[in-house]
Amino acid sequence: MSTLQKLQWRYATKKFDANTVLSQDKITLLKEAFNLTALSYGLQTLKMVVIEDKAKREKLVPIAYGQRQVADASHLLVLCIQSKIDETDINAHFNTIKSVRNTPDAILEPFKAQLTGTITKMTQIKKDNWATNQAYIALGNLMTVCAFEAIDSCPMEGFIPQKLDEALGLDTLGLKSVLLLPVGYRATDDMFAELKKVRKPLSQTIIDL
Amino acid sequence: MSTLQKLQWRYATKKFDANTVLSQDKITLLKEAFNLTALSYGLQTLKMVVIEDKAKREKLVPIAYGQRQVADASHLLVLCIQSKIDETDINAHFNTIKSVRNTPDAILEPFKAQLTGTITKMTQIKKDNWATNQAYIALGNLMTVCAFEAIDSCPMEGFIPQKLDEALGLDTLGLKSVLLLPVGYRATDDMFAELKKVRKPLSQTIIDL
Repeated sequence: MSTLQKLQWRYATKKFDANTVLSQDKITLLKEAFNLTALSYGLQTLKMVVIEDKAKREKLVPIAYGQRQVADASHLLVLCIQSKIDETDINAHFNTIKSVRNTPDAILEPFKAQLTGTITKMTQIKKDNWATNQAYIALGNLMTVCAFEAIDSCPMEGFIPQKLDEALGLDTLGLKSVLLLPVGYRATDDMFAELKKVRKPLSQTIIDL
Repeated sequence: MSTLQKLQWRYATKKFDANTVLSQDKITLLKEAFNLTALSYGLQTLKMVVIEDKAKREKLVPIAYGQRQVADASHLLVLCIQSKIDETDINAHFNTIKSVRNTPDAILEPFKAQLTGTITKMTQIKKDNWATNQAYIALGNLMTVCAFEAIDSCPMEGFIPQKLDEALGLDTLGLKSVLLLPVGYRATDDMFAELKKVRKPLSQTIIDL
């Protein structure tokens, strides 16, 4: 399949085959792909929670307004932002750069100082919005990687984050869930798989200047 | 290359080869890929501006704090949200569904009413944040598609949107730019291409529950 055929193949899976499970190789690939997402300033403050346990996921279905994909998919991915982002994260990031690349402090320090200024000046709301934006980059990346790997997925904004955080104990880890992505394989009788894709023509969404 | 090798190959290109241009096929592919991005409610309110003209892009460099990629890349993609999102967009969307899928009104109407309620209840700030999130999905999708197509790219949040909108006349089109993505081919002497990727180990970014 060409790139476009793969993107065409992808759809928001409404019904997963509850009896098929992604291989451990595919799960590892999705974890690595998440970790390779391009993020603002390279600062990796996102976390991805991976849940296979069916009983645990069954309890989340009502929190996701009854969407069965949460439990029926092979795995549930939960994209989370940190409730607190501060100098600790920036220091850790620059320590990682230093250890990976052996970059001298003299080169790193001005960037570090600038980023520290930028981040610490943000209000909590601004930080949350900024971090949430990054989670959406990860979502876009993961859905496309899934399409290339013939993995089905269904992006979800529709759930009650606070309740999900409590149910999974994410609040005690200092995390806030922002997006769900059930992944697995479509059920053979998911009628949505066969529906024609609804898209505006390029003439309405692209502007050549 | 495997999927992970392709994602590893991708980096935020600091220096593009100013003399190579993406083929028209590649540009069309990027437009189609943008148009196939999975968006909230399937509501396509995003627009992508595609600029090849060098002179036009040269004027945008100072607006992007001197980042040369804006002018040196083969093309500049500008992801935009609409300054106004209302019932007109929802009506157009449901008309498209109807024309593509022949779905009966009796099935569509409840969804349409629900979505109209959701969107019209949003404050302008909430609408902007919601729409901006969608632009980040498109960015994530596009960067990954680029990696699979051996196209280089550099995601940019760092520019002055209002000035860019004025310079390109996007304000008069009712659009607000939110992200830039220069695309093209890396310069052979971009030292950043060879630097080791800086990423936390999976143990710090993934939580298995």
